[in-house]
Amino acid sequence: MGGSLARALRPFAETITGVDPNPVSREYALANGVVDAATDDLKAGVSEADVVILAAPVRTIIAMINDRIGAYLRSNTLLIDIGSTKADICDAMGRLPIGIQAIGGHPMAGKESSGVQESDATLFRNRPFVLCASRRTTPATRDRAIALATAVGAMPIEMEPQRHDKVVAAISHLPYLISAALVATVAQQAEQDDAVWKLAAGGFRDTSRLAAQDLSMTGDFLSTNTQAVATLLAYFRMQLAILEASLIAQENGKLVELLRPTREARIAWGKQDEARRNAK
Amino acid sequence: MGGSLARALRPFAETITGVDPNPVSREYALANGVVDAATDDLKAGVSEADVVILAAPVRTIIAMINDRIGAYLRSNTLLIDIGSTKADICDAMGRLPIGIQAIGGHPMAGKESSGVQESDATLFRNRPFVLCASRRTTPATRDRAIALATAVGAMPIEMEPQRHDKVVAAISHLPYLISAALVATVAQQAEQDDAVWKLAAGGFRDTSRLAAQDLSMTGDFLSTNTQAVATLLAYFRMQLAILEASLIAQENGKLVELLRPTREARIAWGKQDEARRNAK
Repeated sequence: MGGSLARALRPFAETITGVDPNPVSREYALANGVVDAATDDLKAGVSEADVVILAAPVRTIIAMINDRIGAYLRSNTLLIDIGSTKADICDAMGRLPIGIQAIGGHPMAGKESSGVQESDATLFRNRPFVLCASRRTTPATRDRAIALATAVGAMPIEMEPQRHDKVVAAISHLPYLISAALVATVAQQAEQDDAVWKLAAGGFRDTSRLAAQDLSMTGDFLSTNTQAVATLLAYFRMQLAILEASLIAQENGKLVELLRPTREARIAWGKQDEARRNAK
Repeated sequence: MGGSLARALRPFAETITGVDPNPVSREYALANGVVDAATDDLKAGVSEADVVILAAPVRTIIAMINDRIGAYLRSNTLLIDIGSTKADICDAMGRLPIGIQAIGGHPMAGKESSGVQESDATLFRNRPFVLCASRRTTPATRDRAIALATAVGAMPIEMEPQRHDKVVAAISHLPYLISAALVATVAQQAEQDDAVWKLAAGGFRDTSRLAAQDLSMTGDFLSTNTQAVATLLAYFRMQLAILEASLIAQENGKLVELLRPTREARIAWGKQDEARRNAK
């Protein structure tokens, strides 16, 4: 995601410096013109920057904000992150030295595959780019962050960090957990009958895809969004129980009627989503 | 699926007749060379056939077998279905007149979109094609069904109908129900905050895709596979509860360790699946 942002910001930036502990990523980014310079030294990478974008798992972003980065930045630097949850990050930003313009960000775009090798300048086009104010967000910070989101083709949407975290609990974190529980269930069945893995096809592929996500990402978004995710899990259990009761009672007509509004909601959203993607 | 089979069998069949109550589908199939003839009259469509393939929701297939088709078929006609569950269909096949060669089938291939307009001759290539014997399956029936599956490029796999139904409960029917419960949960959240629909992206798209499936298909596969699906739901609940307990207790390290084997299982399956799809 950091690499995609670098590519998308290319036409708007004088110099882009990538900071990454992984030498393979740095070399790739340099060799492919994703960045102009690359280093594993955070201080060296950010001390002259006008804009700093933190792209990492949530707890790594928080650690960078808490431990070091405040002392490295020039005054008036725009500091924005693109972590998966916003409340804890915006809290940490609020404790940065006055003068740093810090705002939370979350572009609602993703790819199956991660890494700078997969970076894509068009990733953010027509996608929402959530911006969450911190105590270090001034009116100028907002304007600069909106300009950045607009520059990469995204649609900036401002909201409270807590509201953002509730929304992503529903659309990202709950789907991840049920995807993981599905794979665990299927793997358990496959121990008894390996035809399970052999016959699995498109339906399983889609529903289980999120279970392959990087654990440093998922562990961090879950543990920084516990309450919202736990609440959604309770609601999900209720919805599933309603379907299950009707299934087991063999109330077939009723089961279909329960599934109908769900199907219609998914189809309606799918059309909007499709239109948005085609517009890109 | 029926249209895709017709296209895939094109090089092997003298005449293909499509039987469909929908005039738009019949006209499309005729105009585009999917079939040589089309009718809405089941008797007329099947009475001269050497091979009859029943492609419909499970209960429609069972109704065709129970109500009419036995009397219409010539002796030695191969009757195969491609319904989503097999036990009830194979039971019904077992009550057909002796002389009809009936066997249950299920090609493990699917598309997001259905209808003859979306038919694709390559849909079955390198995909498993499950065959389930009924009391009307002779050795010749098996041989002919295997030849049919092989002709369309699929890999025939023979198994007991009950075993098939348990496997698809895990890889298709459980994923469908949790996908539907996810959409119901998200729709409920969206009533409180419509940013939920606006921000939903790829993760939600994949995990919720199955919820848009045709209700006549899903209602029938659920209601003809109740016990296996209900059993899987119980196992799924346990897997989700294990993750949930660790999440709520904020045992972050433990949660990641619980998710690790699941991630690895999904990645390992994904590689096999990818290799199979690339081979196609």
